[in-house]
Amino acid sequence: MTIRSVAIIGLGLLGGSIGLAIREKLSEVTTTGFDADADVRGRATANGLVGAVCDTAAQAVASADLVILCVPVGAMGDAARGLAGCLKEGAIVSDVGSSKRSVVSALEEALPDAIVIPAHPVAGTERSGPDAGFATLFEGRWCILTPPKNADTDAVSALTLFWQELGATVELMDPDHHDLVLAVTSHIPHLIAYTIVGTASDLEDVTRGEVIKYSAGGFRDFTRIAASDPVMWRDVFLNNRDAVLEMLGRFTEDLTAMQRAIRDGDGDRLLEIFSRTRAIRQAILEQGQDVAKPDFGRGSKEV
Amino acid sequence: MTIRSVAIIGLGLLGGSIGLAIREKLSEVTTTGFDADADVRGRATANGLVGAVCDTAAQAVASADLVILCVPVGAMGDAARGLAGCLKEGAIVSDVGSSKRSVVSALEEALPDAIVIPAHPVAGTERSGPDAGFATLFEGRWCILTPPKNADTDAVSALTLFWQELGATVELMDPDHHDLVLAVTSHIPHLIAYTIVGTASDLEDVTRGEVIKYSAGGFRDFTRIAASDPVMWRDVFLNNRDAVLEMLGRFTEDLTAMQRAIRDGDGDRLLEIFSRTRAIRQAILEQGQDVAKPDFGRGSKEV
Repeated sequence: MTIRSVAIIGLGLLGGSIGLAIREKLSEVTTTGFDADADVRGRATANGLVGAVCDTAAQAVASADLVILCVPVGAMGDAARGLAGCLKEGAIVSDVGSSKRSVVSALEEALPDAIVIPAHPVAGTERSGPDAGFATLFEGRWCILTPPKNADTDAVSALTLFWQELGATVELMDPDHHDLVLAVTSHIPHLIAYTIVGTASDLEDVTRGEVIKYSAGGFRDFTRIAASDPVMWRDVFLNNRDAVLEMLGRFTEDLTAMQRAIRDGDGDRLLEIFSRTRAIRQAILEQGQDVAKPDFGRGSKEV
Repeated sequence: MTIRSVAIIGLGLLGGSIGLAIREKLSEVTTTGFDADADVRGRATANGLVGAVCDTAAQAVASADLVILCVPVGAMGDAARGLAGCLKEGAIVSDVGSSKRSVVSALEEALPDAIVIPAHPVAGTERSGPDAGFATLFEGRWCILTPPKNADTDAVSALTLFWQELGATVELMDPDHHDLVLAVTSHIPHLIAYTIVGTASDLEDVTRGEVIKYSAGGFRDFTRIAASDPVMWRDVFLNNRDAVLEMLGRFTEDLTAMQRAIRDGDGDRLLEIFSRTRAIRQAILEQGQDVAKPDFGRGSKEV
């Protein structure tokens, strides 16, 4: 099974990056695209995100071997229903959603006869929209596939090869386990970042101007994540509720213990916790999942 | 009042960066330095962090117009007591501590006759030690001075000029207000980062390997901050307890409200919160307190 044409539904950061990556790395593959927003279709055409931007999703997918839904996870069901009866025989339907259990259900319900192989490339930036994509977004990142138990193995192999050719390393996972893992490595970090930025914005005894001025003390890092697409993240939390609440519960237990240690002046306990956390950063650097320069190499002013 | 010689006590990231910045930007100013750790003194000499690394703090400060204590805030009192009787007539004693109320008290108690002008340059990286410093660390950053009410205005002016010449913008502030502002812009972000990295390290149903692999979903950002110097941060939390607990209380209230919105499936509320947080990032970028590239320019792979 060979993927010769890819249809991308949703032409934001992820959809646009897939289109640009295909153009750069898989030049023999043709691409079509659609976005429900006419302005986005215009920008996508101007930016050359895909070979042809179509006026309807049905047109975009008509001859595609692989259809990738790049819309917020809450919009997956509607987007998939719009493709029923329009897909090419044997086409693979996939996605890039950040939660998988709800997406698996939505896609299988909307397209019961299609070959559905959900996917989640763990990559992105705080930017969104049709001007945010770039061809190297997936290089060195992981892409998790959550194929159903009875999935067509040729289709899984073809989709694996596709993501590998865009630069990603592919792993298969059960959708429930995916949702638990991503709750801790992505969803809770975003929730915390959105919360602290909100807290800092609403203080009375510290002005917003002071928060901005002295943000280099650590706060500014959280504002980057909290600048991510609000609709995408609303949908993630609504669609991965159970795993997020489970992990949030563990985090708040640990935060309460930290609070108690500070209140009690328990320096030994604080030092013990603060000393354990460097090892995990070191492992992330060794596995190429972050840049090894101090301060993310920001400003590149280091000697 | 002119600062012709500077003594730096503590030759880690901050002390070393001050020494290197003076060499680069104030070449007519001589520098001496001391660190309680002999290995650090050796590295400081090898790295040329100061003109002369001395064997005792008393030697280092003997002829200095400005003495800067660059030790963890919990060590300020002891470091200052070690200088009693050793200071040059009219010398300014300052510091770089991240909390100020406790430092003001410790320095004034240890050196009742000295000219004490506490300071906090809001700059740093997750690195620490005598190999971590660089001359441009303070460029474009803020430096907050918290002079006592009866402070020598010439001394305040001289210290202001000194930090400006290293590239910083100087602001005067009451120490209690400083501690409240920095609790939200620096201390709580660090506490949250240490906590979530600890939580993620201790899970049973998600392995440490999975946390590392999929950290690019947001978690990796927190591991950078949580790699900061454990002793420095223990001391910050022990010495700024009240402001940290106050701000932590507000954060956990907001987090609880977020948790409730997720549990209730209140998408409108989530969207409203997530939509408000972009403005503060934009202001931070406009004021040059962070790099405007997506993902901090990490990897510089963007088109």
